[in-house]
Amino acid sequence: MNRAIIGKTLGLLLLLECVFLLPGGAVCLLYGEGGALAATLETMAVAALLGAALWLLCRNADRHFYAREGFLITGLGWIVLSLVGALPFWLSGEIPSYVDAVFEVISGFTTTGASILPAVEGMSRGLLFWRSFTHWLGGMGILVFLLAVVPMGKGGYSLHILRAESPGPSVGKLVPKMRQTAAILYGIYVALTVLDVLFLLLGGMPLFDSLGTAFGTAGTGGFGVKNDSMAGYSPYLQGVCTVFMALFGVNFSVYFLVLVGKARQAFRSEELRVYLCLLLGATVIITCNTVAQRPGFRDAFHHAAFTVSSIMTTTGFSTVNFDLWPQLSRSILLVLMVCGACAGSTGGGIKTVRLVLVIKSLRAKLRQFLHPRSVNLVRVEDRVIPDETIQGVNTFLAAYCAILILSFLLLSLDGLSLETNISATLACLNNIGPGLDLVGPAGNYAVFSAGSKVVLMLDMLLGRLEIFPLLAMLSPHTWRKAG
Amino acid sequence: MNRAIIGKTLGLLLLLECVFLLPGGAVCLLYGEGGALAATLETMAVAALLGAALWLLCRNADRHFYAREGFLITGLGWIVLSLVGALPFWLSGEIPSYVDAVFEVISGFTTTGASILPAVEGMSRGLLFWRSFTHWLGGMGILVFLLAVVPMGKGGYSLHILRAESPGPSVGKLVPKMRQTAAILYGIYVALTVLDVLFLLLGGMPLFDSLGTAFGTAGTGGFGVKNDSMAGYSPYLQGVCTVFMALFGVNFSVYFLVLVGKARQAFRSEELRVYLCLLLGATVIITCNTVAQRPGFRDAFHHAAFTVSSIMTTTGFSTVNFDLWPQLSRSILLVLMVCGACAGSTGGGIKTVRLVLVIKSLRAKLRQFLHPRSVNLVRVEDRVIPDETIQGVNTFLAAYCAILILSFLLLSLDGLSLETNISATLACLNNIGPGLDLVGPAGNYAVFSAGSKVVLMLDMLLGRLEIFPLLAMLSPHTWRKAG
Repeated sequence: MNRAIIGKTLGLLLLLECVFLLPGGAVCLLYGEGGALAATLETMAVAALLGAALWLLCRNADRHFYAREGFLITGLGWIVLSLVGALPFWLSGEIPSYVDAVFEVISGFTTTGASILPAVEGMSRGLLFWRSFTHWLGGMGILVFLLAVVPMGKGGYSLHILRAESPGPSVGKLVPKMRQTAAILYGIYVALTVLDVLFLLLGGMPLFDSLGTAFGTAGTGGFGVKNDSMAGYSPYLQGVCTVFMALFGVNFSVYFLVLVGKARQAFRSEELRVYLCLLLGATVIITCNTVAQRPGFRDAFHHAAFTVSSIMTTTGFSTVNFDLWPQLSRSILLVLMVCGACAGSTGGGIKTVRLVLVIKSLRAKLRQFLHPRSVNLVRVEDRVIPDETIQGVNTFLAAYCAILILSFLLLSLDGLSLETNISATLACLNNIGPGLDLVGPAGNYAVFSAGSKVVLMLDMLLGRLEIFPLLAMLSPHTWRKAG
Repeated sequence: MNRAIIGKTLGLLLLLECVFLLPGGAVCLLYGEGGALAATLETMAVAALLGAALWLLCRNADRHFYAREGFLITGLGWIVLSLVGALPFWLSGEIPSYVDAVFEVISGFTTTGASILPAVEGMSRGLLFWRSFTHWLGGMGILVFLLAVVPMGKGGYSLHILRAESPGPSVGKLVPKMRQTAAILYGIYVALTVLDVLFLLLGGMPLFDSLGTAFGTAGTGGFGVKNDSMAGYSPYLQGVCTVFMALFGVNFSVYFLVLVGKARQAFRSEELRVYLCLLLGATVIITCNTVAQRPGFRDAFHHAAFTVSSIMTTTGFSTVNFDLWPQLSRSILLVLMVCGACAGSTGGGIKTVRLVLVIKSLRAKLRQFLHPRSVNLVRVEDRVIPDETIQGVNTFLAAYCAILILSFLLLSLDGLSLETNISATLACLNNIGPGLDLVGPAGNYAVFSAGSKVVLMLDMLLGRLEIFPLLAMLSPHTWRKAG
């Protein structure tokens, strides 16, 4: 194993985090928040020193780079960034427990949005900014950013890292060069975020709130800057949010195709169509189901659309306490949590394309059962999907179920309600944020013990990195020197 | 498609059911229950007439027989037998609604043991006997019985039927001839049941109760003859039940190997060892978790062992209301519901061997990820498992999850608690019986609407027939005349 290149990359990541802490520090300065500023500066110093040391030690790394190194860099990178990124909250005393601070930052980077804070309005503006900014960084991937800005030589480096960090069963290159692909992805991401901020500003939202909300939307994260999430904003602002959450849940290659003039090809995407159908279908059913609780049909539709968009894209903003909705709506939300957004978007969950593949392969299998000698291929958009991809999806699902069951059992040790434990596991593993019952929109994750919080942190990382990079970290095979 | 052979087999099945109704009728006669006797005789007449008519119409069927026909006979056979088997309850007025009567009988044949009856002690003895007897018939499979007693010619007939009706990812022939295999399976089944009855009689249980309990245990069904299930019996009787439930959850090929003097090979079975470890592990954890609620360690262990054995083998008897246990114990039970017993036993659930295969294939996949060029095979007991079997298991799991989610959503329409809906779906799909909350040991399935009951009936059939035979029935491919 090439330990040097792992060390070098981790060093670069820490240096990058030092830069990313700057805007939060600036906000502290702007609002005159001395304690938060000091904590941020101290963290920047730690990041810079650690990063520089690692980089200097390992700068002569050779190019020997395989899947294993890609997984390790990704898994370790996310953990190290979170451990350092939590320092400002802890050093400033705004989150007194370091475990809680790490929980909050992992929840940020993984774009989960699960919080241990009962109220956010008492926090300093600068740290609130950093908290929301972690969503934006984690959404598209910090390593992808690194790829886009730092030339790291050739070999499998870019490919293996992009594979390990990007969501979805198969990573398509948009253009032949990986580095350019990363740059294009970030370009689209920045453009959409700016657009979101502009629409929010147009609706009269203050700049600070707009940035925070846009970061949470773009990363499909869900950390807000208000105690009541999005409930206090005007219907227009909530509507903007509904639309942009849905947009950030779309596979970014769709936008790329539209940009290069292949809009027709983009809209032929089966994943996109299934995604939109699910969004619309769930909204309609929930509207009908909740209309009796609301003042009118339009209002019911407005909140149903917002919530469905928020849950399915795994963002986690809320305008109403959907934990109080009728059982059918709550159950639909629980199922949407699992479905998740499109592959290649910033959203979490199992991903729509995997659902499409599973359903199609089930149908093919059934035909095979009935006519054992026939040939049954799985096709998506007229392309035949190789057996390997389908097996990969099935393996993913099996691992997903295993992790779900294990986490659920571990959380049960705390003795909270079954609904809390199931929905908390689902909300963290799928990077959503709020669940039901005690962790519903009106509750928070402070109810859990420290041990359960660690389990949920691992769930968030497993969900964001799609299980295997993290499992790889825990495998003794990875750490063997030879091979 | 060969419709004639399907008709002929269904006719034979109905004639067989007519015979199977006899013992229940005899019990009616013995206890002088006129109404129940009349209803039973009427049902026998219906079964005999229908059966004879079908058999006469289709007796000249040719031997043309493939997987498709096997699935169809199994799916249709179970439904027809249930529709007719429900008549005695309905005609006698002891279950006034026909839907409820069908629910009860499907629950019996599929060895689920979920009941819509709040109390069973008021029922006539004869019908109570028939209710328990359905468990015994369904446990090993009614079609397997048919194979064992009626010569049906050669061709794929026996093989395809045994495959469609027997649980587990791959059906092993014990001896080269399928008919003999079926006879051996039933031989072991009868012998173990007789042994169970003897042990119960030794403990002072009345003959009627012993038969009812043994039928429920052998089929891993769970219908009891008392309102409080097994709570009223002595610890000795409960202990006998604990042991026999566990025994009926073991793959019957283990007993076959022991019988032919290959005990060593039998105990090398990885499935058996994992099954025993899970039973023991869960018992120990639950004992520790519930000891504070019970008068002493021994008592806690006694009830933990009974409940774990009952839930994991998907029987569903109860000695205590485990719905009142601490959250950890309840969660473990929920997970055990999913695991289920060994393949090739009378138990339901996903089956231990599938769990073993999934875990092993996950490990192989992880190694593959880390070392893309290495060869990673899945081995069980030193035999290499073909990729096809593993893919089959994965497909099964995907279909299982899809059905679980769909049923859960449909049940939510009734507006009952999330815990009730999740546990009812799991309890029916895995053929267990009692769930948690409203359908816990102290509740019953009468709380659901007729529509939800139909969903749960389908779940029970899907669970018992392992999904594909029933899905095949619903596929238009199956019904096409050509091919």
